[in-house]
Amino acid sequence: KSRTGLDAKLPRLETWENQFPGYTITIVDPEYNAICPKTGLPDFGKLTISYEPDRKCIELKSFKMYMTAYRHVGIFYENAVNRILRDLVKACDPVWMTVTGEFNARGGIGTKVEATHRRA
Amino acid sequence: KSRTGLDAKLPRLETWENQFPGYTITIVDPEYNAICPKTGLPDFGKLTISYEPDRKCIELKSFKMYMTAYRHVGIFYENAVNRILRDLVKACDPVWMTVTGEFNARGGIGTKVEATHRRA
Amino acid sequence: KSRTGLDAKLPRLETWENQFPGYTITIVDPEYNAICPKTGLPDFGKLTISYEPDRKCIELKSFKMYMTAYRHVGIFYENAVNRILRDLVKACDPVWMTVTGEFNARGGIGTKVEATHRRA
Amino acid sequence: KSRTGLDAKLPRLETWENQFPGYTITIVDPEYNAICPKTGLPDFGKLTISYEPDRKCIELKSFKMYMTAYRHVGIFYENAVNRILRDLVKACDPVWMTVTGEFNARGGIGTKVEATHRRA
Amino acid sequence: KSRTGLDAKLPRLETWENQFPGYTITIVDPEYNAICPKTGLPDFGKLTISYEPDRKCIELKSFKMYMTAYRHVGIFYENAVNRILRDLVKACDPVWMTVTGEFNARGGIGTKVEATHRRA
Amino acid sequence: KSRTGLDAKLPRLETWENQFPGYTITIVDPEYNAICPKTGLPDFGKLTISYEPDRKCIELKSFKMYMTAYRHVGIFYENAVNRILRDLVKACDPVWMTVTGEFNARGGIGTKVEATHRRA
Amino acid sequence: KSRTGLDAKLPRLETWENQFPGYTITIVDPEYNAICPKTGLPDFGKLTISYEPDRKCIELKSFKMYMTAYRHVGIFYENAVNRILRDLVKACDPVWMTVTGEFNARGGIGTKVEATHRRA
Amino acid sequence: KSRTGLDAKLPRLETWENQFPGYTITIVDPEYNAICPKTGLPDFGKLTISYEPDRKCIELKSFKMYMTAYRHVGIFYENAVNRILRDLVKACDPVWMTVTGEFNARGGIGTKVEATHRRA
Amino acid sequence: KSRTGLDAKLPRLETWENQFPGYTITIVDPEYNAICPKTGLPDFGKLTISYEPDRKCIELKSFKMYMTAYRHVGIFYENAVNRILRDLVKACDPVWMTVTGEFNARGGIGTKVEATHRRA
Amino acid sequence: KSRTGLDAKLPRLETWENQFPGYTITIVDPEYNAICPKTGLPDFGKLTISYEPDRKCIELKSFKMYMTAYRHVGIFYENAVNRILRDLVKACDPVWMTVTGEFNARGGIGTKVEATHRRA
Repeated sequence: KSRTGLDAKLPRLETWENQFPGYTITIVDPEYNAICPKTGLPDFGKLTISYEPDRKCIELKSFKMYMTAYRHVGIFYENAVNRILRDLVKACDPVWMTVTGEFNARGGIGTKVEATHRRA
Repeated sequence: KSRTGLDAKLPRLETWENQFPGYTITIVDPEYNAICPKTGLPDFGKLTISYEPDRKCIELKSFKMYMTAYRHVGIFYENAVNRILRDLVKACDPVWMTVTGEFNARGGIGTKVEATHRRA
Repeated sequence: KSRTGLDAKLPRLETWENQFPGYTITIVDPEYNAICPKTGLPDFGKLTISYEPDRKCIELKSFKMYMTAYRHVGIFYENAVNRILRDLVKACDPVWMTVTGEFNARGGIGTKVEATHRRA
Repeated sequence: KSRTGLDAKLPRLETWENQFPGYTITIVDPEYNAICPKTGLPDFGKLTISYEPDRKCIELKSFKMYMTAYRHVGIFYENAVNRILRDLVKACDPVWMTVTGEFNARGGIGTKVEATHRRA
Repeated sequence: KSRTGLDAKLPRLETWENQFPGYTITIVDPEYNAICPKTGLPDFGKLTISYEPDRKCIELKSFKMYMTAYRHVGIFYENAVNRILRDLVKACDPVWMTVTGEFNARGGIGTKVEATHRRA
Repeated sequence: KSRTGLDAKLPRLETWENQFPGYTITIVDPEYNAICPKTGLPDFGKLTISYEPDRKCIELKSFKMYMTAYRHVGIFYENAVNRILRDLVKACDPVWMTVTGEFNARGGIGTKVEATHRRA
Repeated sequence: KSRTGLDAKLPRLETWENQFPGYTITIVDPEYNAICPKTGLPDFGKLTISYEPDRKCIELKSFKMYMTAYRHVGIFYENAVNRILRDLVKACDPVWMTVTGEFNARGGIGTKVEATHRRA
Repeated sequence: KSRTGLDAKLPRLETWENQFPGYTITIVDPEYNAICPKTGLPDFGKLTISYEPDRKCIELKSFKMYMTAYRHVGIFYENAVNRILRDLVKACDPVWMTVTGEFNARGGIGTKVEATHRRA
Repeated sequence: KSRTGLDAKLPRLETWENQFPGYTITIVDPEYNAICPKTGLPDFGKLTISYEPDRKCIELKSFKMYMTAYRHVGIFYENAVNRILRDLVKACDPVWMTVTGEFNARGGIGTKVEATHRRA
Repeated sequence: KSRTGLDAKLPRLETWENQFPGYTITIVDPEYNAICPKTGLPDFGKLTISYEPDRKCIELKSFKMYMTAYRHVGIFYENAVNRILRDLVKACDPVWMTVTGEFNARGGIGTKVEATHRRA
């Protein structure tokens, strides 16, 4: 299995300084779109990110640009969800974060992947 | 990030004297409407407030006036939810309170913010 | 705030002798109807009662008559839910009981009130 | 309150020998149909049974025959749910079992009854 | 009760090497199709598998071939769900896995079976 | 095919004198219940009657009694719908009337029957 | 059948001067509430009025007051719908108007009544 | 394109003698299942048949057997719908008949086919 | 009734040159927001515009700006819908156009207004 | 407005020889994806094609390849729908065909475009 998708260069995720402690933010992008490394055909899905911000919040416009860039990346569902979690955690260092990807059925079979980060 | 929205003067929240202990009240305002500080365009959303009243309950008409006033306030989603929580807690000192804001999609991305207060 | 609604005379709640321990009953009355003490206009809503009966179960026909009588009572949402809980608990002394009222929106704002009794 | 419905003779529930430990089975019969002992009119509802089988599983065809026989039995909702639980537990001795009955509204009021057995 | 369905030879489940720890994958196959051993008629249903992969993930194409092969197998619902769990666990040795089968109603009665494996 | 169901004696349908011309009435009975002449098992379904009354309207309580009596009648879906139409037309002589029966699936197959009467 | 409900005095329907030709207005009141002349118990339902205004439009606040007054009127469904049509037509003389009432089930049977006025 | 599916031998469709003129029957089989001639993989779908019977009605059990037999037939969607229409028309000679097939998505693309026969 | 809302200055609607004849475009703005001239409180609603373009199509960004400007305009529902139709027709001279406004309930009463233009 | 999208080279649409007259085929592709010529950002939507085939039917795999190729084409909604109609009509010369595109909201505004071809 190629790791290309995990290493592909993507736009920088911006953040803004959080002003309140102890709450949660959920963002939903129903337009996930990447390339299946096996078939070369486009994959579609819905991404949901929930997190408790600490000092930084994800800036939405840069997040949209980051997500849009997957359009040219060959990456499997599982790796996409885990990489998005890794990149977002690196960008804003949240108390916790969950990334869920619900992907359109292929071969009649639907797939959902969910990964969670909790601060050590 | 401007703090304007956090300091803007808003109508006073009235309360009435609670007569029963240990129950919960949920109020839903599907007509949240404020100004995005970045674009100057109106934001729309649904606000849900749940709380366990102690001595005071939020009076609904003054709550409606308070919410309607956001119409002229430039404030980000996250700050709006946290300020509404802060103002309602200050007005009625509840045992606990949760404020949830579900905001209409912008750039194809939907956002939900949830903040909770629990008495120390 | 007037306590009238809390003291208004209502039809007697009948019960029947329970024959099984340790189960729950849920009854739903979507036709709650009372008078708003402030505006004099009718309020509408849906009442849901869940409880674990001990020796007595609420008889449904008398419950319907009891609920129908609110039609002529001026009472706020919060007091209605708490009084219904108080009256039902008094009538059947359950192990626990929860009363939930979901009320039609007024001024664009919907309200839900939930109160629970647990035996001391 | 007559106990007739609790004593009425009903078809025998068959079982088959379970081959796996530690899983759950849920069966749904949306065609519950019995006689209201008070009015003599038919009651309708949906029965849901969930259980963790031990050595025996309920055979579905005999269950259907058992349920169909309620059609000629005068029995209250609460007693029906509790008797069905009692009969099924006696037939298959499960690790645990829950029976839920959701009954069509009468007098505008809907009723749900839920009873659970856990092995001593 | 015949054990044929439990012993029937089925296509091999392939796996691929997992690259991330501690997340969950859910796959849904709405086209379960096997033969009822009693009536010889086809059964239909929806299979949902959730698991936390350890070193291996189930390869989807081989999973589809595996599921499609049930089409010629006479097997009861309960055995199908438990065998699918057993085969998938054997193939990828997950941290935990749940298999749920929701089967089309027969004789007006719907059935759901859910089995879970947790690593010893 | 037996005609028994078509000849079975049923309770009399009452009417009341209509006071307005040119409007339509729709009544829905979700508790159709009769006996399948083939299997002897109960059938379930939802009956919908729409009509433009002329001089007489169907009285609802007698209609309920009439429908409830099918519970002991062996009759096929198609004959039930056509007989109900025939009996209601005879009772109230409407300008037009449509009877629709939607019957619970048997053998996985659902059935709907619709018959219309228009005055000659 | 008493005609009381048809003659009961109700609040005056106000109108305002229409400024555009050839369009339609639909208003929905989900809080219809009157007294069943037979049982003395309250009826509930949803009223929908559609019309093409000519010179006058129905003023909504007076319409609400008019509808609220039915609360103390004993009137059958069919007569209520026809009287509401008659009163609204008299008040605003529309090009055409349809009044539909969907009433909560009684005795398990739901009722819908629809009446239309077209200018001669 | 092979015509195999159009010529495959299928179980005989039985009929029963219709007793009423001028009404419609709709039958729904959500368990259409055949073989894709191209891929050899099973296809799934929902079949809906509506018709106005003349002298004969389709007998449901033989219809179910007829439909179940497609399970071993390689046939394209379009041909399946048209053949089912042809066979049913031949069996019962209806005034008119429509057959609609809604097929599960393949390659992310869903397909619906609808064919109608009207007597010459 | 003031005509202010009908005369208020609003941003210019831009168009682009259509390249195909005989098709329809539907645009939906769920964020209608204006001021009720009676109460001074904000109104909310959903606007739907369908039309068959002739030489010009409405440019979406300018349409959004045009709609957003209603935020500061005092105007009744009926006048808003008719003015929007008038302004859009003037801007793009379509073969036909329909504007529908569905407005949030006030006083428990929901309102829908629909106006259509057809070229003379 | 650039015509690029209308002239972009796309994969060839294949057909197969139709064997039945007078029926309709509907195909749904929920994964429309192209580039907005104005913003350079991806557009998403659902395409629905209905047609009555004459001699030729659209082959689904080539249709999928054709649709997937829009991914790299800059084209407005209206032009995409009209070009897809033009290309499909050219490929299979149907009796009639309708293409509908429902596009994800941009700036809070959703768009639907529908174009129809009828043989001269």
